[in-house]
Amino acid sequence: MPSTASIERLAAILSSDRFLTQPEALSAYESDGLTAFRTRPLGVAIPETADEVIALVRACRDTGIPFVARGSGTSLSGGSLPVSGGIVIAMNRLNRILRLDPEDRVAVVEPGVINTQVTAAAAPFGLHYAPDPSSQSICTLGGNVAFNSGGAHCLKYGMTSNHVLGLKAVLATGEVVEWGGPGRERLGPDWCGLFTGHEGLFGVVLEITLQLLPRAECFHTVLAGYRTLEQAGDAVAAVIAAGLLPGALEIMDALALEAARAAVHAEYPPGCEAVLIVELEGPRETVAEERVRLESILAAGNPVAMRPARDAAERLAIWKGRKSAFSAVGRLSPDFIVQDGVVPRRRLGEALRRIAALSQESGLRIANVFHAGDGNLHPLILFDGRQPGALARAEAVAGSILKLCVEMGGSITGEHGIGVEKREFLTDLFSPDEVDVQKRIRAAFDPDGIANPGKMFPGTGAPALTHHGLHPLEREGVIFRE
Amino acid sequence: MPSTASIERLAAILSSDRFLTQPEALSAYESDGLTAFRTRPLGVAIPETADEVIALVRACRDTGIPFVARGSGTSLSGGSLPVSGGIVIAMNRLNRILRLDPEDRVAVVEPGVINTQVTAAAAPFGLHYAPDPSSQSICTLGGNVAFNSGGAHCLKYGMTSNHVLGLKAVLATGEVVEWGGPGRERLGPDWCGLFTGHEGLFGVVLEITLQLLPRAECFHTVLAGYRTLEQAGDAVAAVIAAGLLPGALEIMDALALEAARAAVHAEYPPGCEAVLIVELEGPRETVAEERVRLESILAAGNPVAMRPARDAAERLAIWKGRKSAFSAVGRLSPDFIVQDGVVPRRRLGEALRRIAALSQESGLRIANVFHAGDGNLHPLILFDGRQPGALARAEAVAGSILKLCVEMGGSITGEHGIGVEKREFLTDLFSPDEVDVQKRIRAAFDPDGIANPGKMFPGTGAPALTHHGLHPLEREGVIFRE
Repeated sequence: MPSTASIERLAAILSSDRFLTQPEALSAYESDGLTAFRTRPLGVAIPETADEVIALVRACRDTGIPFVARGSGTSLSGGSLPVSGGIVIAMNRLNRILRLDPEDRVAVVEPGVINTQVTAAAAPFGLHYAPDPSSQSICTLGGNVAFNSGGAHCLKYGMTSNHVLGLKAVLATGEVVEWGGPGRERLGPDWCGLFTGHEGLFGVVLEITLQLLPRAECFHTVLAGYRTLEQAGDAVAAVIAAGLLPGALEIMDALALEAARAAVHAEYPPGCEAVLIVELEGPRETVAEERVRLESILAAGNPVAMRPARDAAERLAIWKGRKSAFSAVGRLSPDFIVQDGVVPRRRLGEALRRIAALSQESGLRIANVFHAGDGNLHPLILFDGRQPGALARAEAVAGSILKLCVEMGGSITGEHGIGVEKREFLTDLFSPDEVDVQKRIRAAFDPDGIANPGKMFPGTGAPALTHHGLHPLEREGVIFRE
Repeated sequence: MPSTASIERLAAILSSDRFLTQPEALSAYESDGLTAFRTRPLGVAIPETADEVIALVRACRDTGIPFVARGSGTSLSGGSLPVSGGIVIAMNRLNRILRLDPEDRVAVVEPGVINTQVTAAAAPFGLHYAPDPSSQSICTLGGNVAFNSGGAHCLKYGMTSNHVLGLKAVLATGEVVEWGGPGRERLGPDWCGLFTGHEGLFGVVLEITLQLLPRAECFHTVLAGYRTLEQAGDAVAAVIAAGLLPGALEIMDALALEAARAAVHAEYPPGCEAVLIVELEGPRETVAEERVRLESILAAGNPVAMRPARDAAERLAIWKGRKSAFSAVGRLSPDFIVQDGVVPRRRLGEALRRIAALSQESGLRIANVFHAGDGNLHPLILFDGRQPGALARAEAVAGSILKLCVEMGGSITGEHGIGVEKREFLTDLFSPDEVDVQKRIRAAFDPDGIANPGKMFPGTGAPALTHHGLHPLEREGVIFRE
């Protein structure tokens, strides 16, 4: 336990209303709201400037008090949860767009800026910021960088790391570094890419230079219903094999459709057990030509029905059903776990069959809503936390799904990160030597292990597991899980 | 100096014809042929398998003998030069394409595979490997990864790091790691991106998983001649501001045009002091539409002449003039230095004016051939190495150009790397803290400093500077500098 003097040193950096230690104030920061873990921090610091963040990190270094930087707390792997005996650095007030340059097509932002605010600011210039996690209306760019967030459109546009051109950060050592910049050409190793996805274990990001892209001139969105999940999977393979690169390729299975129907009154073709959403985007002429090809490819796969969106309202309705699917599943079950795994695209059908078998064996219902184009699965494991042993059974199924992803040559996370939830699975994917090198690199940034300890790497000190459930903001339809 | 026993331990790993120590055999490896440095290695190992490379690196670790991995030796910064008292690991025989998967659009290759061989193997499937350094007909992918190589098309497609999906490598510690993989979604920090651009200081790459892209359906190449270099620069700004993203945007100045005319009989419009090459690429409909816009944008900038390539032969002729420009400059002068710096695109005109002033002050002619779309300058500083002090004067001008790039918010290298040539400039771009962190990360891979020591970081042990000149393969037009 750190001494009172140590905590006072930290508190003295900010005005008293911005360093919270009262239990009632801390309770809001105990959990990230979306995972089943809970820890009470020693205190919550609410800096307003980069200099205050630097001073806090240096004081942590001097006193040995661990810290975690937190944006909106939408992490799905427990990465932004408080660390035991540490402080939370709440980054939300560092929320300025420092520069928006339509000619160079870059935005320089503070880490507390909300994802959608960048696109809102860039829209008058015909530009947008591409990565679109489903929580984009509330999640911060600092969190997006820490977890290398994806989104429905990462099939075409890649992850956050593909759009971060430069970073300024304070390391756990107190050193301040600036890497990258507006240019795409890089010198030496990609220090900036190394920092993207660091899950808070290297330090705290202070400024982010983002690439902006011209907004697509036009979109064409098609919803196709299939009698089986396998047929929908085959259609994805056919689209990719034909050389089309849609902006998004998403699948929802029967249980997810049932949930979306119940929650947002989404209308899906009767008799279909799976729905595929394909969105083309690009210059008008290209989309017009690709649209014809897409429809003939889809038609060859014998869909029950095929519904191209005829206008912007119909496109929005298709996406509303998809983006609300996770929260909607919450209506079918008191609790659920969202899993996040990746399999090679061509083995999607096999993965889904094995997940169905796990569901049967365990007696737990599993809904599937996923980024089919990337092979990024998001199975939702439904359970009732009030039943003894139910959480443990659900966690076991979630773990089995990760193991099968690794076995099939995939990954234990597509976009949610490792955090607390998956740290024990890291060794399934990396050899002891590989983990050891990663720890040595981490030590180059944080020799004393004060930046978000207990996360990413297997070890002790994890926040306690409680239960999964629907976040209040999800119930209201304000945020969505990917 | 290592003991005879140490060298014998290394030599014993390979058959005697594949571990060279005879002075006449070593002389071919003394230089990289394109920079002005020279060092004789202790020996040259020619492994044929990844296991042999691993055994060599582990023996180096045990004996403390430093090593450098070398592909075709086309490095332009001295990065692949032998290190003093060390061995060269010649990777050329690890030249197998291990897997080419048109459905997943990936190729898995050994590091000795030549850049163009990947595209040649992928072409029957309508795919290509995008990064295209001018030396692509002889440079190896291991070297491309080590230096994060670019090329004329990196404006649109990015650098090597944007196309490397996975890597297998042996670290200087002897540990073997595998990072990334065919999927685009990444877990945690981008370890794979960290390795791309490591300039041989972390270990040796054994296998590379590359992304393949569909070949553009059609190209449209325009050559525009201008009365001044500034007008050509303004045209670049106008093209980008209009929202066009050409595959390439290249400028050649008057001296470069003179050289290309003399060497490859390239025909340029009379009365022009600068030539801009713009290449559109994409689906037929898009290019047809963009072509009209491009021509009206260019026409607004008052070119002396505008020549769209009417067929594939005319397109090739335009590129031949551009790609041979560097070697052609060698005909105007016995020696020259190719510099590589980056400035923000919008400050291109100012940078060129300052380079012209440096030329006047020093009395040395400077030709400019550059990737205008990226702000990546390649000034060629002409001198006569037989005159006393001429090399030093040329090096001083080269250094001043780098300083002005940094001052203008750019970088000391766009694509050639730091190597030996630019290590003393690293501290102009990075703060002492930033360099210190980089060295700590390097130490996580190579605690004893045996992997390519004396490169990238300022310090001692650089190979000796001799003189610059035209490489025999350049004279024959087999290779080109970017």
